[in-house]
Amino acid sequence: MNAHMSPEEFRRHGRQVVDWIADYMAGIESHPVRSRVGPGEIRDALPAEPPEHGEPFEAVLADLNTILLPGLTHWQHPSFFGYYPSNASGPAILGDLLSSGLGVQGMLWITSPACTELETVVVDWLASLLGLPAHFRTDARGGGVIQDSASSACLVALLAALHRASGGRVARTGIADRYTIYVSSQTHSSLEKAARVAGLGAQGIRVVDVDDRTLAMDPVRLRELIAADRAAGAVPAMVCATVGTTSTAAVDPVPAIGEVCREHGVWLHVDAAYAGVAAVCPEFRRLNDGVAEYADTYSTNPHKWLLTNFDCTVLWTADRAPLLDALSILPEYLRNPASSSGSVVDYRDWQIPLGRRFRALKLWSVIRWYGAEGLRAHIRKGVSLAQDLAARIAADPAFEVHEPHPLGLVCFRPRWPGLSPAAADAATLRLMETLNAGGSLYLTHTTISGRVVLRMAVGSPATEHRHVEQAWDDIRREHQALPIQRVTDQTDQTD
Amino acid sequence: MNAHMSPEEFRRHGRQVVDWIADYMAGIESHPVRSRVGPGEIRDALPAEPPEHGEPFEAVLADLNTILLPGLTHWQHPSFFGYYPSNASGPAILGDLLSSGLGVQGMLWITSPACTELETVVVDWLASLLGLPAHFRTDARGGGVIQDSASSACLVALLAALHRASGGRVARTGIADRYTIYVSSQTHSSLEKAARVAGLGAQGIRVVDVDDRTLAMDPVRLRELIAADRAAGAVPAMVCATVGTTSTAAVDPVPAIGEVCREHGVWLHVDAAYAGVAAVCPEFRRLNDGVAEYADTYSTNPHKWLLTNFDCTVLWTADRAPLLDALSILPEYLRNPASSSGSVVDYRDWQIPLGRRFRALKLWSVIRWYGAEGLRAHIRKGVSLAQDLAARIAADPAFEVHEPHPLGLVCFRPRWPGLSPAAADAATLRLMETLNAGGSLYLTHTTISGRVVLRMAVGSPATEHRHVEQAWDDIRREHQALPIQRVTDQTDQTD
Repeated sequence: MNAHMSPEEFRRHGRQVVDWIADYMAGIESHPVRSRVGPGEIRDALPAEPPEHGEPFEAVLADLNTILLPGLTHWQHPSFFGYYPSNASGPAILGDLLSSGLGVQGMLWITSPACTELETVVVDWLASLLGLPAHFRTDARGGGVIQDSASSACLVALLAALHRASGGRVARTGIADRYTIYVSSQTHSSLEKAARVAGLGAQGIRVVDVDDRTLAMDPVRLRELIAADRAAGAVPAMVCATVGTTSTAAVDPVPAIGEVCREHGVWLHVDAAYAGVAAVCPEFRRLNDGVAEYADTYSTNPHKWLLTNFDCTVLWTADRAPLLDALSILPEYLRNPASSSGSVVDYRDWQIPLGRRFRALKLWSVIRWYGAEGLRAHIRKGVSLAQDLAARIAADPAFEVHEPHPLGLVCFRPRWPGLSPAAADAATLRLMETLNAGGSLYLTHTTISGRVVLRMAVGSPATEHRHVEQAWDDIRREHQALPIQRVTDQTDQTD
Repeated sequence: MNAHMSPEEFRRHGRQVVDWIADYMAGIESHPVRSRVGPGEIRDALPAEPPEHGEPFEAVLADLNTILLPGLTHWQHPSFFGYYPSNASGPAILGDLLSSGLGVQGMLWITSPACTELETVVVDWLASLLGLPAHFRTDARGGGVIQDSASSACLVALLAALHRASGGRVARTGIADRYTIYVSSQTHSSLEKAARVAGLGAQGIRVVDVDDRTLAMDPVRLRELIAADRAAGAVPAMVCATVGTTSTAAVDPVPAIGEVCREHGVWLHVDAAYAGVAAVCPEFRRLNDGVAEYADTYSTNPHKWLLTNFDCTVLWTADRAPLLDALSILPEYLRNPASSSGSVVDYRDWQIPLGRRFRALKLWSVIRWYGAEGLRAHIRKGVSLAQDLAARIAADPAFEVHEPHPLGLVCFRPRWPGLSPAAADAATLRLMETLNAGGSLYLTHTTISGRVVLRMAVGSPATEHRHVEQAWDDIRREHQALPIQRVTDQTDQTD
């Protein structure tokens, strides 16, 4: 039987794991980007029952190599261009390791004061780096907090918005009025999920039209919808504007939307999950337009493009009172003089879960390792590589590029001359599947105006010019090799 | 400017961090258990603005030592007896390090199949270790999933319960009926929070009476409340029974509560956050009584007492259909053939957030390192130390012990002869504050029948007999030294 792992055993096995990760980093290009396993293969390779006796730690590493690695899609591979980046980095991994090693709970200030106070400092740092307004800071009426994900940040924002819209009644009576929230067809699905979780249901969600070209929310239509809902007796509770949508990185017109929100006293949440962190660069600071003047809450994800391992979403609020009122419950076993004094922050009241990891350590470690200049260099490199790629695609008459593409995401599709729209869409998906199955790159798709397009999101720290160039070569080669006639015959079987 | 940390730099700094943690483990008793800093001290010691230029990693470690360490309350200290344990362990830390190093996203099966399939395997393993029913497995109609916390697990359970109680209507109409949930005065506050989040409000929460002595929910009273609510037009949606309450580790009578739920078709969630993992030992398997027959959902926290760093709550359901129906939303950019085929699990539909870490690695690493026998030994040691402590306290006429205390938690208080109840409670709190300020141990309090009691939760892997013995010596010494007259004069100032 293994006893608890002693400090000396931890030192030895810890080095093995550090070496394993360093080797994985150094050799990541030897793996196909997307896993080639089929459903159930990994599960079937693992024992159905747990071991009765403890095993040496080396057994875990051996099974990691032989069983698990083939089942991984490698998000840190320099040719991973799917979804959005989910940056890891050395300083983030080590900051998170310190958090695991310390094993402290930061639910209340008193349960580990440094866990709370470092978090306040680093979210203030990040606000400063992004040029966010001073009233988002804890020493003003607002404050920032690390959430696990943009989904949770949006839910917390909605709960605060419902609290304000109801004058605090929802905490007592629940959803007793017809509250409505406003999104666009491009808004992340987590807003619909949040509305369902919060008890509004699908009928509480209004989908505002977008501009056909830019895919940005139409503030005129928003104003009409809110006025009509109000006239019909509904209570408009929140508008979610997006800075960098999940599908195409579209940017909603926050100032015009904010003006509508102000007219009607509606909470404005700005979801800048992907694009927000680009504001570390002065040339992208315009992504914040309207945030200082109008946003009640604002969130962005350092765990996407800012080198900080998942999970790390930062949510700021201009006024923490409705957020805390919506989420605070104080049982006897959590009472303590520091909290009662009101002189400390208890982050459990800023989130859904009670418990919390020391997540600030990884963001602190990242900001200190890179400094502001290093963070700017990382964003600029991703944008530059994406712009090079977009120029190449646009120069090829067989392809078309979706405009605009100011950041790290490029959406494009083959023109497929002579094919019907349905057949062309099937061919595009077939091209994607062929590329992904090949293992040399990974990309994903979306639809724009009903047509399938491919998405290449550039922004992994490992991605260099040669990876993007190779990807574009692979795409053109497979595009030319694709047996189009067969594709058109198989339209119905393609998903 | 620092570039990205290279694999070789990561190897070097990784070893520094591993050594730091090993040294921290080995020397943890040199720190006061509870931090002695005041509000703002840590914050004031840190720069108000982020660095422009990158810094060497050693600067992070230096500030960790000089600035942050004094601000930590050390949850892994062997004399930490507050709240409930939040076990860390070597294999868990290293499993989590592997998760950070791989940096994969497990939101969908396709985004890293091994991340999903290992999770299914290890939650099945844990079900097997705890003797949970076969229908909680994914290969039956149920399934398990790792959540961040019991709070989130309870919220997910409630959303599934509301879905079933409404026949799916809540997804469309939101909370349009008067849904009610049933808890006791001893139920964790996260249930009240979940009810508020889900749009039921405080008036949707029914607090069922508890037995004065055992503090267990009264199933007779539960039946009356449900019948009365139903007669009044409300829709009883969920009962939460607790196995090991946060305050005193009380155990609700799940079989009798389950019978009431079955009669009325009400969802039964069993919250076994703290105590559930004790069922790894056959002698505590009775904690599962009624779970197989009646529970719709069941959750327990390996991150409390089962050696797996926060965050790791496992939630099982007997029928995954209402849970998935309540939480599934599929935007175009997440569509993929594997998900469409229905042959894979997509865990994003089992939780609130979209993104997810590879958390299964740490639980897998723990189960393999310890084996079933090692996990049993750990639970038994905590129980044994707690029972020794309870016997010592019970043998001292100056103290009284709250009965029963079958697991690792002992609740007790000084008798304070001659003091009024209010003065005695103030004295008990004063004793706790004196002890915690001393730094040699940390304990917390609760109230039982309106009276303040102290809680000593034993179960940290580092805790040995001598730490419990020393704690009891400290408690008796400070109790004898406490200037009682001054305390009674200051009753109003004590919180």
